[in-house]
Amino acid sequence: MNSHASFNRDAARPKAKFRPPAVHQVRVGGFFGPRIDTVANTTAHTLLDRCIAAGMLDQVDPDRPNPGLKIPFQTGNDTVTTQMFWDSDFGKSIETAAYALFAKPDPTLEARVDEVIEAYGRLQDENGYLNSWYQRIEPGKRWTNLRDCHELYDAGHMMEGAVAYYHATGKRRFLDIMARYADHIAEVFGPNEGQKRGYCGHPEIELALVRLARATGEQRYLDLARFFVNERGQDPHYFDIEAARRGRDPKDYHFANHEYTQSHEPVREQRHVVGHAVRAAYLYSGMADISTEFGDETLKPALEALWGHLTDKNLYVTGGFGPSAHNEGLTFDYDLPNETAYAETCAAVALVFWANRMLGLGPDRRYADVMERALYNGALVGLSLDGTRFFYDNPLESRGGHHRWTWHRCPCCPPNIARLVASVGTYAYGESEDGIAVHLFCQSEADLEVSGTKVRVSQETLYPFDGRVAVRVEPETEREWTLSLRLPGWARSVTASLNGTPVDVSANERNGYLTLRRIWQPGDRVELDIDMPVEMLRADPRIGANQGRVALQRGPLVYCLEETDNGAGLNSLVLTSQSRFAYEEADGLGGAPRLVAEGFKERLSGQGLYAAEKPAREAATIRAVPYYAWDNRAEGEMLVWVRREEAQ
Amino acid sequence: MNSHASFNRDAARPKAKFRPPAVHQVRVGGFFGPRIDTVANTTAHTLLDRCIAAGMLDQVDPDRPNPGLKIPFQTGNDTVTTQMFWDSDFGKSIETAAYALFAKPDPTLEARVDEVIEAYGRLQDENGYLNSWYQRIEPGKRWTNLRDCHELYDAGHMMEGAVAYYHATGKRRFLDIMARYADHIAEVFGPNEGQKRGYCGHPEIELALVRLARATGEQRYLDLARFFVNERGQDPHYFDIEAARRGRDPKDYHFANHEYTQSHEPVREQRHVVGHAVRAAYLYSGMADISTEFGDETLKPALEALWGHLTDKNLYVTGGFGPSAHNEGLTFDYDLPNETAYAETCAAVALVFWANRMLGLGPDRRYADVMERALYNGALVGLSLDGTRFFYDNPLESRGGHHRWTWHRCPCCPPNIARLVASVGTYAYGESEDGIAVHLFCQSEADLEVSGTKVRVSQETLYPFDGRVAVRVEPETEREWTLSLRLPGWARSVTASLNGTPVDVSANERNGYLTLRRIWQPGDRVELDIDMPVEMLRADPRIGANQGRVALQRGPLVYCLEETDNGAGLNSLVLTSQSRFAYEEADGLGGAPRLVAEGFKERLSGQGLYAAEKPAREAATIRAVPYYAWDNRAEGEMLVWVRREEAQ
Repeated sequence: MNSHASFNRDAARPKAKFRPPAVHQVRVGGFFGPRIDTVANTTAHTLLDRCIAAGMLDQVDPDRPNPGLKIPFQTGNDTVTTQMFWDSDFGKSIETAAYALFAKPDPTLEARVDEVIEAYGRLQDENGYLNSWYQRIEPGKRWTNLRDCHELYDAGHMMEGAVAYYHATGKRRFLDIMARYADHIAEVFGPNEGQKRGYCGHPEIELALVRLARATGEQRYLDLARFFVNERGQDPHYFDIEAARRGRDPKDYHFANHEYTQSHEPVREQRHVVGHAVRAAYLYSGMADISTEFGDETLKPALEALWGHLTDKNLYVTGGFGPSAHNEGLTFDYDLPNETAYAETCAAVALVFWANRMLGLGPDRRYADVMERALYNGALVGLSLDGTRFFYDNPLESRGGHHRWTWHRCPCCPPNIARLVASVGTYAYGESEDGIAVHLFCQSEADLEVSGTKVRVSQETLYPFDGRVAVRVEPETEREWTLSLRLPGWARSVTASLNGTPVDVSANERNGYLTLRRIWQPGDRVELDIDMPVEMLRADPRIGANQGRVALQRGPLVYCLEETDNGAGLNSLVLTSQSRFAYEEADGLGGAPRLVAEGFKERLSGQGLYAAEKPAREAATIRAVPYYAWDNRAEGEMLVWVRREEAQ
Repeated sequence: MNSHASFNRDAARPKAKFRPPAVHQVRVGGFFGPRIDTVANTTAHTLLDRCIAAGMLDQVDPDRPNPGLKIPFQTGNDTVTTQMFWDSDFGKSIETAAYALFAKPDPTLEARVDEVIEAYGRLQDENGYLNSWYQRIEPGKRWTNLRDCHELYDAGHMMEGAVAYYHATGKRRFLDIMARYADHIAEVFGPNEGQKRGYCGHPEIELALVRLARATGEQRYLDLARFFVNERGQDPHYFDIEAARRGRDPKDYHFANHEYTQSHEPVREQRHVVGHAVRAAYLYSGMADISTEFGDETLKPALEALWGHLTDKNLYVTGGFGPSAHNEGLTFDYDLPNETAYAETCAAVALVFWANRMLGLGPDRRYADVMERALYNGALVGLSLDGTRFFYDNPLESRGGHHRWTWHRCPCCPPNIARLVASVGTYAYGESEDGIAVHLFCQSEADLEVSGTKVRVSQETLYPFDGRVAVRVEPETEREWTLSLRLPGWARSVTASLNGTPVDVSANERNGYLTLRRIWQPGDRVELDIDMPVEMLRADPRIGANQGRVALQRGPLVYCLEETDNGAGLNSLVLTSQSRFAYEEADGLGGAPRLVAEGFKERLSGQGLYAAEKPAREAATIRAVPYYAWDNRAEGEMLVWVRREEAQ
């Protein structure tokens, strides 16, 4: 656990009631410690290696020969190549490297990042414009196709990378480059005569501008973010105007309408999560930021409705969402197929971002529970235990053909899950004028501020493998404030004590948090004991394929069966009402225990594909491993929703 | 039941050991009678109405203004429009009309068909060429893209229509037109200098040329069919040569290889059913025809292996196949998803054709069982009970959004299922020098020939709703021959009697048929009693989604649950080991009885999308209707694979 805490801070604080601490304020060990170390030691380098091997630096660096088009245009869409997104991949990789530098000084890594940043510095146009695709591969087409071409999205991820790198190193070079670019964007886009009233087909820059505004203290970046949020989906539709300007029929579009980009209606009118999943959650994150930064209550009805629509009707048990490969996104309510689930890693990561911003209004279990579910399952699965391979789409069932990629043609997910893991501490806490919230449990130490005093809050816990958490509070000065500790929605019971004296949990619960208000003194210690049996979750009957089946969950972790533990034919295995789970150690799972229960295995008695005979049964031991840890051992089948015979 | 039998016959008989009778030899009543009447009275007219409303006659008739391109090119494939297939739709519609005329004289229908035929007559090129797309919409591009553009496929369906119309009316006009076109095709294609060594991307003409050869008695059409079969998949690959000739990169293709068109390897080397499902089954039908017509044993290993691969690993319980919309075809073994099943109506129809041709070698239950399964379920479902609406794709589960079309942009299925229903009698029987086979049971009367004598074979039965079948034999002359009666593979027991005397079924079984050899006398009567309880079929464990579920089948009919009988939430319903089915009458199912059993309904006890609480149960009555009859009443959910709790 790295304890130096002299990193650079934002110039302006988030205006949210509850703010997430900066990454460097929280030092994380326990469950996430080795994962963060792996990102710092391995993944942060791997990402740069593979970006450069893909040719990204050749595209960026004006001193190198122009490599031209390297990746064919995507099938069925003659306006988009993944090469257009490469700046964003560098942006997220730099952000990952920055968080890695919090965890561990690494001059080699820092020098590699500086080399990339200098290439961008040389590339930047005199007017501030900066996009390697439009400057080197398709010059002359700047700002002509915001709908399809990710130009502002690229800028957003670079801004996020610049802010993180500034925080980690104190070097302003990349931050200044991106601020200059943001100033240019603010000239090009806006409500005034001669400005474009456009916004990006792939939301992202909105939340990035908020981060840039906080880092620099410049209100104009917040205003620009608000402009992008407000313009979205207005009539006449910018993407149609823009298409006509390119001489194209606006209807000549890969999708039937503008739902794919969440620009089908103004954001304040939106009530249903639609379209591309990652775009959706990035947009809603930006909306939540704008809502809290400007105290804008008019965005809340949309945010609340969108949250409910996602979590009540469209969320996988893993916290993934967006079932369809066709639009990388949403289809219709309760459409949550397992084997064909797209559930892109980036979507689960983006859901963590969104949930985290929804917590800006104050502790509320509705958001924190989903944040935790997405983090530990649908997001974390994207990164192999050794930090070198990545899942893009995340089915909940596989016949054995689904494996992590060394690299992906569209490499958005690898740096996205890496930056999330390396910055996970910021999601664990919230600080406000009058209180501190513990949203996630993990072995950690956070340097926070409340009521004008510094407070170190530390957690001792084996969570998520054990439900006991000891929270120690060390204020510099004794002040009265409220400590809010999440009571997970999945927990059937939680007991608590303060300095050894039992606390009445239900009497002190508010929005799913145990709230303790007192004059906190150095050494105060709250202990939680969260009951954490193996739960068998049943799905809403409208999710037809999951009926007669259960998903195994213990604490925040969803489990799955793998062929390597159970043999082939996972759908032949059945849990019964007598099945009781025990835990056992297992190799190759990064220290996670395996669940073991007795059930039975069916075998078709008749001949052929279909037979009238009742299947034969034999006793079988059924083993389950955390979903995030699957496909780290021998290849094979995987299954989340396991058959279960209920007692009659 | 129409009894006049003075229709026109083929000039040459099939050389298969067992031949299907011509359509007019069999008069069908019972279960199929009303369906055939509906096709004759309604569908045959509806098809012409809708073809003409779509603009097909405008495209064909050279005396009408050239309508130009009417339907946009298909997404992702800039070489194909459905308009290219329109001649095939007319061909199949004319074939349907021809069979309708067997069932019932209809001067209006005949006049309408003659009008279309005359338009084709005027369109035909001096050299015999005939294709409305290439003559009127894309002149100058004849024979330049056999891979994508269905040019020979169109010819094939028109040939089939011409043969049927000649049989029904005795008019040679259309037959002569198509024979002239076939002669032109035989000049263009062939192994000699200056001829093209090509074949159609969509097989069909192979089996059509065999029918044309039989109707006309011309060996050269058989030779041409064999040429197309033999050339397929040879190296160098014709489609690649042709693409290069168009100035296109052969790799610039919508699919990764030539499996889509079953031209990835020579047909005799093929062992796995791949690619587009309808193309596959048409090709295999043509291969079976060539095998029997030429006594070509070298095609048999492929045909046997392909049959096994389809039926052992890739067939839906409905007899549909081809799960994927992407290629309208096959994916990988045991990939048989229910809700997203493509299972095109045409594929099930084509499977009936293929199975029927495999029976050319002699009675064999392996083929007849699958023929019956595809006919009664995956094919018949394509036509609404009133004969006016059509299914294209056939999922085995629907959340309520899947309904028959009034017309389809690609209207291949409507005339395909209509022509099959109207000609179903030909699939019920087989005749050979030394025997008669009854492949399908249905109330019917067939005028056949065996051992040099005419024999009228008639069936009295309520099949498929009752398993008792009385077969009456009326030979003109008493001769010794073998009567083979199918013993359905799904039947657990069959008892039989000959003129009231019990027959030892198992002692007289051969390849799944009861074979009775004797000197048959007028009035001989064989009675079969086929046990027909409701069976609960289990699926091979490798079809994961079907585990813990059963498909209900009684006789040849697969049943399904519909929302209109059971309420919403069909996946909440569970059959138990105590569930016993009774029958009840129901409205709106064309006289089919409904199955009724007691089971229970689950209700999620907890809140939200996922809950740890055990579901609550309440008793529920579960009703099932024949799959072919679904979506003929109120709209709603549908489910074939029903949950079932086995006894512990």
